[in-house]
Parts: sequence; structure tokens; C-alpha cells
Amino acid sequence: MRVDSEWVQVALLTFDLIGTFVFALSGGVLAVRKQLDLFGVLVLACAAAVSGGIVRDVLIGAHPPASLADWRYLVVAMAAGLVTFRWHGVIERLRNPVQLFDAAGLALFAVLGTGKALAFGLSPFAAMLLGIITGIGGGIARDLLVVRTPVVLQQTELYAMAALVGSGIVALAAAFHLPQHPAMVLGALACFGLRFMSIRRGWKLPVAGGSDGR
Amino acid sequence: MRVDSEWVQVALLTFDLIGTFVFALSGGVLAVRKQLDLFGVLVLACAAAVSGGIVRDVLIGAHPPASLADWRYLVVAMAAGLVTFRWHGVIERLRNPVQLFDAAGLALFAVLGTGKALAFGLSPFAAMLLGIITGIGGGIARDLLVVRTPVVLQQTELYAMAALVGSGIVALAAAFHLPQHPAMVLGALACFGLRFMSIRRGWKLPVAGGSDGR
Amino acid sequence: MRVDSEWVQVALLTFDLIGTFVFALSGGVLAVRKQLDLFGVLVLACAAAVSGGIVRDVLIGAHPPASLADWRYLVVAMAAGLVTFRWHGVIERLRNPVQLFDAAGLALFAVLGTGKALAFGLSPFAAMLLGIITGIGGGIARDLLVVRTPVVLQQTELYAMAALVGSGIVALAAAFHLPQHPAMVLGALACFGLRFMSIRRGWKLPVAGGSDGR
Repeated sequence: MRVDSEWVQVALLTFDLIGTFVFALSGGVLAVRKQLDLFGVLVLACAAAVSGGIVRDVLIGAHPPASLADWRYLVVAMAAGLVTFRWHGVIERLRNPVQLFDAAGLALFAVLGTGKALAFGLSPFAAMLLGIITGIGGGIARDLLVVRTPVVLQQTELYAMAALVGSGIVALAAAFHLPQHPAMVLGALACFGLRFMSIRRGWKLPVAGGSDGR
Repeated sequence: MRVDSEWVQVALLTFDLIGTFVFALSGGVLAVRKQLDLFGVLVLACAAAVSGGIVRDVLIGAHPPASLADWRYLVVAMAAGLVTFRWHGVIERLRNPVQLFDAAGLALFAVLGTGKALAFGLSPFAAMLLGIITGIGGGIARDLLVVRTPVVLQQTELYAMAALVGSGIVALAAAFHLPQHPAMVLGALACFGLRFMSIRRGWKLPVAGGSDGR
Repeated sequence: MRVDSEWVQVALLTFDLIGTFVFALSGGVLAVRKQLDLFGVLVLACAAAVSGGIVRDVLIGAHPPASLADWRYLVVAMAAGLVTFRWHGVIERLRNPVQLFDAAGLALFAVLGTGKALAFGLSPFAAMLLGIITGIGGGIARDLLVVRTPVVLQQTELYAMAALVGSGIVALAAAFHLPQHPAMVLGALACFGLRFMSIRRGWKLPVAGGSDGR
């Protein structure tokens, strides 16, 4: 990643922790709805926040995973779990701002995940996939833990597709040896913008059917 | 694996990609039935095709997993997903030939998975288990993602047992220091044959019950 | 872990295998209830017994995982699966003694898991989490494989919390550079005692709700 400026480092960490917090809120809210106890709420908050990054780190061989090596990620995730446990009614009413932060977290996770995979020597194609996994893996783990089909796999607004576009821009830049940092900024903006427009306008992916009958 | 002849290498890769394609079809068909969107279909196709090998590689410490290091596996899996998305009615009607290819894929995955684990220095017993995981892990991941009990764990024709026999033959040969390549051919044939007979004759494993009542 | 006395080593291994056996029983019983075939019973027995340790080893980068490197764990787990398959009625009636052994297994897995993570250089905070995962991961995998919300996440007697207390004592001792072996004994006793009292007295964690309404 080699970001030289200390200021940029701090900004990235801040965004990363905000993304972690917001992802964790989504886990906590689901756990409360499913009537899990306090421990279950904390587990779902952590699972939603860090599973994507952990799967990425396990696949690229980064031991221990970043979110275990640095205690701040899990502490932030648990704080979000506690907040949800106490004020879940408020969080549910704040749906719109939470969705905005979630879109920012998705953009950041996808782009940084792709960058980390590239830094570990993976091909641009594999790095793109790992970026998507970083972005959407937490939501999948969260949903599987309460035994529901991951919402990201069902027909919803463009969520994974936004992660794909963000990761893909970073991966394409690497494939063509273009400078990485502008590509990461561009990828994050594209991912965020696409997700934002999809929420606003209800853009969706097609479902199979039609001519084949059913 | 050290297969010297280039011809054998090409044949193995070809079979491996065919197995990947057919396993991916099973994921795509399930995703279409569950009304997932295009992205969900692609994810289930990839999950069914490569999860078994990825779990094996993570457990033996092979980073990055083969199916991420070589882009052909995921491209083939995604192609199968697209085919299912567009022509799922046709695929469903081709059930019988697909089952045959699936049996071939199972045999190959189980035997090659055992071989790779042995090459990474695992004991024959552990290598046998990793061969089974390579063969059946994709189907388990596929089913869990749409929240259904993995069919391989329920009473069906001998599927996992066929993988066990194939992997076991390779592992036994390693335990007794017998030559590996003939064992792999024999293991693959035994796995394929057992699976084939089980489909034809409806051979099953027992379920607990009977004398113990319920 | 560097336990010098051979006697202690043998005692630890014995407890570890007893814990493995009892955890595997819980998997086997669930599989029989869900009408899985013999293979499914064996898989659930193994999943319940070794998943927690495998996830820990994958996250700390210990390849191959201990339960694959040493065949005794899986053989013991499979034996438990066979016992359940044949005598599940008896096992279900032995619920109380099984719960006691399960509490002992939980205490041992949590404490040893924390110790192993510390030995691999993880921070006390991360080691505590990995100890909890070692203790409860098997039950989560077992439940997910038959598609039910992990019981450890739902309102039950203090189970995960007991693992947390046991792991936390070992982690705190490491953080303050106190001797590790007394801490492990103390942690295991605390975990076992808390779990035992929770079964006897029905101690539970709170569930969100109340003032926030629903």
C-alpha cells in the first residue's frame, strides 16, 4: 500500500474504522431483530464488520488477519454492537444515513482489499475478486449466522456490482501498470456513486426467467 | 504431483476444467431456482466449483489457493454461471449427462486433492480427508449459501462415500509406499464407478433409527 | 505451551481427547435428529469436535491444523459419531453427564486455544478471541451445517460467556506478564464453574428490548 504521507494514513484508518463501525451496526441490528442475546449481538456485529477482511487475509496468507492483529477494529465493532443493543430503535430509524456510511464502507473495503491483494502479489483478476470478498464477505457471514440467504445474493439494489466496479478499476490500473493511488480514489468514488444511485433510483440486476418459463 | 509428460498435464487440466464447469452448473441451477439475481448466480456457480479446493489449500497452507492463482478456473465457473442463467431450462433437462460429468469431476477432484495434500507433506489419513473435502466442499458451500442442509449430508445415493473410496485408495498407496500414479487412476475409476452404480441402482447409506426408536 | 512434565502432557492430551469425544457426541446427536445418513453423522461429529480448533489454526497460520496433523482427534470424533449412530437413544438420556463433560471440554478448549494463540505471537486481546473461537466454533459449524441458528448465539445459559471468562483470565495473565500455567488452571476452573452454575441455576444473558419497544 505504501502510502507515504502520514496524513493520508490517518485518513485511511479513520475511514476504515468508520466503515467497520457501520458494517457492525448492520450485524447488531439483525441480531436484535432475531432476538439474540447480548453475546449474539456482539458476535454478529464483529462478523459483519471483519469477516470479509479475514477471509481475504486467510486466502492471501496474511497471518494473523489485520482485524485480529490490530485490536481497534474489534473494539470498534463491539462498540457498535453495544450501541445497537441499547439503542436499536434509534439505529433502525437512522436507516438512510446508515446506508450512506455503509456505501462509503463498501467502497473503501473493496478498494483497499484489492490493493492489499495486489501488494501480496496476486494477479489483478484474483485481486479484484478479493476486493469484492472484502466488501461483501461480512454481510454474507452475518446473514449465514442467522440462517438467512445472504441479501447480497438476492435481488437488491446494486451492491456487489458496485464493489465489483470499484475493485475492477483498481485491478485494471494494476494490469496496465497505471498509478495505483488515483485508481483507488477513482474506484472508491465509482463504487460509492453507483451504490448511491442504485439506492436512490432502485437500479437492479436481472433475474433469470422470462423465455425459459417457470 | 510431478507428472512428467506434458500430454498428461494437458489432459489433467482439461478434466479439471470440465469438472469445474460441471460443478459450477450445479451452483448456477440452484441459484436460478432460488430466484437469485445474476450476481447471485455467478457467486453460487463459483462457490460450487472452487470452494472445496480453496478450503483444502487454506488448510494445507497453499497461498494463494490454486483457483485464485490461475484465472482459468473462475472464468470457466463464471461461464457456466452465465450458461445456466440464460439456458437453465435446457440444463435442467440434461440432468443425466450432467450427473455423469459431475461424477467424473468428483472422482478427479477427490483424487487430485488427496495427491496435493500428500505433496504438501500431510499424512495419508489427513490427505484422504482433504481429498474428500476437495470433492464435496463445493456442494456444501453452494447449499449453505442458499440456506439448505447440504444434500451430501442427507440420505442420497453414495456421493461422499464414492469420494472417500477414491481418496482412500490414493492415501493407502501412499501409506504403503506404492507408486502414486496408478493409485490415482485406480482411485478415480473406483470413485466414478461407485457413484455411477449408485445413481443407476439407487444404492444408499443407512439412517439411524430402528431398534432405538425415536 | 512448553509444559515440561511428561505427565502433564499426557493428562492434557487425555482431556483434549475427552473434550473432542464429547463435542463430537453433540454433533452426532444433532445429525441423528435431523435424519442424516451415516456419513452425515460422521461429518457433524467431526465438525462439532474440530472446527473451532481448525479456524483458530487457520487464523494464526498453523499449517496443517492440529486436528489434521494428529489422526487421533478425528478418529476419536468418528468413534463418537459411530456411538451416536448406534446408541443415540442412550446418549440423549445421558444428557446431564454429557453436559458436564461438555463444560470440561469447553474450559479446556478455550484455555488451550488462548495459550496456542499466545505461543504464536498474537496479542492477549486477539488470543482471548481465538480461545473463545476454539471453544464455541465447533458448535457453530455443527449448527450451520444443518441450517439452524447457532444455539450459542441465542439466549441460553452462559456458554460463550464462560469461554470468555476462561480465555480472558489466560489473556490477562499474559498481558501482565504473570506465569501462564497457574492462569490456565484458574481460567479452566472459572470457565467450568461458571458454565456449571449456569446450567444448575439457569443464569442467562439479557436480550435487547424493553424500553425501546419493538
